[in-house]
Amino acid sequence: MVQQTVLERGAHGIGVLLSEEAPHGHQALGGTVLPTNLGLGATFDPQGVQEAEAAVAAELAASGIHIALVSGLDIARDPRWGRCEECFGEDPLMAARMCEAIVTGMQGEHRSKVGHGGVAVVLKHLAAQGEAVGGRNGQSAVLGPHDLHEIHLPPVAAGVRAGALGFMAAYNDIDSVPCCANPWLLKDYLRDQLGFDGIVMADGLAVDRLEDMAGSIPAAGRAALLAGVDVSLWDEGFTRLEEYTDDEQVVAAVDTALRRVLELKAMFGLLPEDGADTAAIAMPSADAIAQATADGREQAKRMAREAITLINDGQSAATLDDIRSVIADAQAGPVIVAGPFADDFGCFLGDYTAPLPADEQSSVYRQLVARLGEDRVLLAAKPSDAPADQWARASTVVFVCGSTSERSYDSEFDDNGAAKAVTEYGATCGEGVDLSDIRLPWRQDDMLGEVAALTTAPIVSVAVCGRAHVLTDVLERSAVTIWAGYAGQYGPQAVADVLVDGADMSGRLPVTLPAYPAAIPVRYNDRQSAAHVYKDAAEPILRGFGYGAGSLAAVTFSEMHADTQSHPGEVLVQVTAHADDHGAAGAVNLFAHVSGGRRIPRLAMLVDSVYMDLNAGERRDIAFHVPCDRLRDVGDGQVQVTCTLDGDSTHTVTATLPGEY
Amino acid sequence: MVQQTVLERGAHGIGVLLSEEAPHGHQALGGTVLPTNLGLGATFDPQGVQEAEAAVAAELAASGIHIALVSGLDIARDPRWGRCEECFGEDPLMAARMCEAIVTGMQGEHRSKVGHGGVAVVLKHLAAQGEAVGGRNGQSAVLGPHDLHEIHLPPVAAGVRAGALGFMAAYNDIDSVPCCANPWLLKDYLRDQLGFDGIVMADGLAVDRLEDMAGSIPAAGRAALLAGVDVSLWDEGFTRLEEYTDDEQVVAAVDTALRRVLELKAMFGLLPEDGADTAAIAMPSADAIAQATADGREQAKRMAREAITLINDGQSAATLDDIRSVIADAQAGPVIVAGPFADDFGCFLGDYTAPLPADEQSSVYRQLVARLGEDRVLLAAKPSDAPADQWARASTVVFVCGSTSERSYDSEFDDNGAAKAVTEYGATCGEGVDLSDIRLPWRQDDMLGEVAALTTAPIVSVAVCGRAHVLTDVLERSAVTIWAGYAGQYGPQAVADVLVDGADMSGRLPVTLPAYPAAIPVRYNDRQSAAHVYKDAAEPILRGFGYGAGSLAAVTFSEMHADTQSHPGEVLVQVTAHADDHGAAGAVNLFAHVSGGRRIPRLAMLVDSVYMDLNAGERRDIAFHVPCDRLRDVGDGQVQVTCTLDGDSTHTVTATLPGEY
Repeated sequence: MVQQTVLERGAHGIGVLLSEEAPHGHQALGGTVLPTNLGLGATFDPQGVQEAEAAVAAELAASGIHIALVSGLDIARDPRWGRCEECFGEDPLMAARMCEAIVTGMQGEHRSKVGHGGVAVVLKHLAAQGEAVGGRNGQSAVLGPHDLHEIHLPPVAAGVRAGALGFMAAYNDIDSVPCCANPWLLKDYLRDQLGFDGIVMADGLAVDRLEDMAGSIPAAGRAALLAGVDVSLWDEGFTRLEEYTDDEQVVAAVDTALRRVLELKAMFGLLPEDGADTAAIAMPSADAIAQATADGREQAKRMAREAITLINDGQSAATLDDIRSVIADAQAGPVIVAGPFADDFGCFLGDYTAPLPADEQSSVYRQLVARLGEDRVLLAAKPSDAPADQWARASTVVFVCGSTSERSYDSEFDDNGAAKAVTEYGATCGEGVDLSDIRLPWRQDDMLGEVAALTTAPIVSVAVCGRAHVLTDVLERSAVTIWAGYAGQYGPQAVADVLVDGADMSGRLPVTLPAYPAAIPVRYNDRQSAAHVYKDAAEPILRGFGYGAGSLAAVTFSEMHADTQSHPGEVLVQVTAHADDHGAAGAVNLFAHVSGGRRIPRLAMLVDSVYMDLNAGERRDIAFHVPCDRLRDVGDGQVQVTCTLDGDSTHTVTATLPGEY
Repeated sequence: MVQQTVLERGAHGIGVLLSEEAPHGHQALGGTVLPTNLGLGATFDPQGVQEAEAAVAAELAASGIHIALVSGLDIARDPRWGRCEECFGEDPLMAARMCEAIVTGMQGEHRSKVGHGGVAVVLKHLAAQGEAVGGRNGQSAVLGPHDLHEIHLPPVAAGVRAGALGFMAAYNDIDSVPCCANPWLLKDYLRDQLGFDGIVMADGLAVDRLEDMAGSIPAAGRAALLAGVDVSLWDEGFTRLEEYTDDEQVVAAVDTALRRVLELKAMFGLLPEDGADTAAIAMPSADAIAQATADGREQAKRMAREAITLINDGQSAATLDDIRSVIADAQAGPVIVAGPFADDFGCFLGDYTAPLPADEQSSVYRQLVARLGEDRVLLAAKPSDAPADQWARASTVVFVCGSTSERSYDSEFDDNGAAKAVTEYGATCGEGVDLSDIRLPWRQDDMLGEVAALTTAPIVSVAVCGRAHVLTDVLERSAVTIWAGYAGQYGPQAVADVLVDGADMSGRLPVTLPAYPAAIPVRYNDRQSAAHVYKDAAEPILRGFGYGAGSLAAVTFSEMHADTQSHPGEVLVQVTAHADDHGAAGAVNLFAHVSGGRRIPRLAMLVDSVYMDLNAGERRDIAFHVPCDRLRDVGDGQVQVTCTLDGDSTHTVTATLPGEY
């Protein structure tokens, strides 16, 4: 209707560009809900993400949408930030590969699907929003140019290389200069250095937020335009640019922005062609939407499975295998599903998600009932929901804890749609829901303590988290802990697949889990270890970035060696993987520590990651390609690099890069 | 003995430069202990600090010392950092004025006292150590060049302007480049831009800490030397520079460093003169030391008094005046002195302090006994130390809480002297004592709750703090709260002066006090307000920077106006102060908010501060001089500045700076 109205009534017969939020799937009624990026990040599977995003793009295109606004650039640097769920994690290389996957999936190789079953991608947010002081959304990103380049710009560069047609300038400032009025960022870096040729859109109302800095709303619009913003979102500032019709700089910049938008419209056939008065635009068909949606659901299911991560097993008398046997034993006592999210669906979905139809909604409790029967499964969201004798008879407790970004209809929202105020048992994550205290909300640690006191049955905790909550108590009190970071609409199924059907877990933690609430931030790629620094928090890391105790943990590696000679410009690291008799799937990560430069090296950097699927007993050689440029950017003298497999110091190889930079 | 031995046995008859730690007074047996910088910062009285540091310098010089290593450059940016106590606070302008005061006080105007009753100052630490990620000592300072210049370099520039003869390069890196191997910082900025001509000393073992970066210990020494370090402290790296005798760059840099050290020695007459074989050096005299020490004690007493800050009064039925009346009333019930520091002396002294003679030690309890008599004062460090009936009879409770940097003899220390491990009731502040949890240690909030439950008497809490602890519960449970941030060896006397003798409190908070433990950092000069950002910490500031409810709170101000024309290059803001019939002493602070630039302006910046002492009923005109350069550095377009007195929005004046930058 919008498109037809504009075509009929517009002066030039030009169609309108329709954009949709797509931070993790198609965020509209009936749309496919992928895991949030923090869930996708746990897959370490860019190829899988590319296929999933291609399906989402097909769904969007079938619905008449041209532009997808997709999170991907943000790096999770502080767990207090409510938008950590929109980050692929804390690692820049993995975020870069995922952004490449998004763009290639949605736009096709070399933009081949733009206007042909795909959509244009606007990657957000440019840049460094995750570095905001104290994890405070949209506040100052306090960092210097070197960290900016190493941590936050790699996904930007990857997005441009893949052909992204748009970038969204972020709310925050970087070292005092707001991203929406930062000519270095939006012009010198993005266009001149990277060669970007698409549109720059400002985040919602971000231009008007410059009023205090610029002195007035029109001056805010002018500052953003001249710095390189082509399109604003809801702002008054851009609508008042006509006040500058005598300002040649402004007129020229408006012309440039307009040209960019028209070029984008042309890609979608929104301009009249061959002498026609109006553009000829195909309207959405219900069949095409239904087919695309069905494909999208399959992808969502697959990515949910890959996102599930085993973060603790074997530290207690009962292992996951033991617990699976008990759950499978129809004669064993009941399985009690406990915790605030025991029968919750919304917690898996993340922010920006529209309600799903009732027949697509589920929960861990409902999935277990469906597979084990009503008699075997009891629900006790609160400990008091089940009587003491039931707790005593339980064979297993599944404690579903974490946080949720689900908005309720009585939530208050800010002008730009971010959540404003939350109430008890309201949203505890998502945009506008920063938390100072990153322990599990609503005293869930205490609740788990009460559960543990009521039963001797082993506890499997399922942590549904959009940020790196402190799970110290959870790990201590549970025989097994599973991280299910906002796994999307098939999250409950994926959890049940693991518990009931023995599905392997290939996920790895995309963020470092802190052990203490205020000994933060801790990131695997910091330059100094935080261990033994705080006198009240000697070991502030509970689980490191990349940790995953799933099937890959049983793969053995051998014959690791490095070769700096045969491939100019890269270090080639090779290793042989050998699966046990179960086979294994997941990513093998290579980390490097660089020495010999003029900068304090990071403790480690992820330098390559290979996703593999090994059959039972299979041996396979894996090759990691590490560009020397990346290492030399860190150490700019005679550089020595130590490569380590998955943080396991028994698989390490050291090489000296040839030549001096 | 050292000096004589070197003179007698050295090859060239050159004396040795003796240096002493002087972060807050003369840190040696018998030395004068001033308030730590966080205490001195609360005075907002640079002139007072100058006089106090002059007395300390005289004491050092009388003892044969040439170089004082003095904290002053560090800015308190994160309360988790154990060295916050060494900062003058969170404001760069006040730190700059204090550094100027240190240098002028210790070296004299234009270095006139160097070698003539004063000492050479090595200001530490260069630079941005307070910006370390997570408040972790010596770890990466994550910030950009603009913040570096605005927040951390003003005290450096002020120190050079005042003639400082030395700077100590810090442990941390800034955006990956370690301060000890940062040629921009140590050469381009310090020497070329500022014109510094003294010595650069590396912090203890800081050079050797570069081993991982540089590849080896000798390479670490070379990197530091070539970047501009002249003198290292305990490092092996510098002792192995002889391995580079063929390296022309190294040889030239050693020559330069040596020349700088010899120039400094010449200032103290440590070189042989007039054809003599050895330098003629006057040896310390006991009389001179005694005289200097007596002067130092007077200064320490004065600064302790000025440091005491009233941070809560009048929110409860009993005001400070009421409580003073009760304390003065010999017929009233006993005064119970409670809390872990009720009878403690060390807590007032700060880190780096040598033990004082027994006859100089005191405590709040002992001071109250001395003034009120043993019968009126009871000690109950723990609530259970006094029986219930005594609590019931109490007329007043003085709760002495906070943290302490006192090291015990069983403390473990790191190679460089920093505290390594602390035990229950051990040090909770100081170098090497970073805390993740900034609530009062040892559950003092709970202890105060127990006290409040035992008595109906009004509670005066005295917070002895070296960092911005969370005092939310303290303020809520106490009728009156006094901040006594490590007020030095006369801290107990100063507290008793206030409680018993009705002394005025002129102090102001040198740091923002957070309301919640993890809603940090919050600084008055952040660019965005943290209010209503964290969903679990709506108002994260308990008390703002500059807050002080002492005698100045009763001064009325009128006729505030701004003048941008008559003094080229500055905004002149004038206001009339009118004291009530008690008179008032303390600093009046002028804050500015700038609009019209290309950077997000800070919420406020302290732009001038005038210390005044008003007689009863006195009216006085105060002039604030605000250099336009400082404002234009923030807003580089058409700049409008709004000046506000002491954060009180009723005293505000707005001016537009002439011209465009």
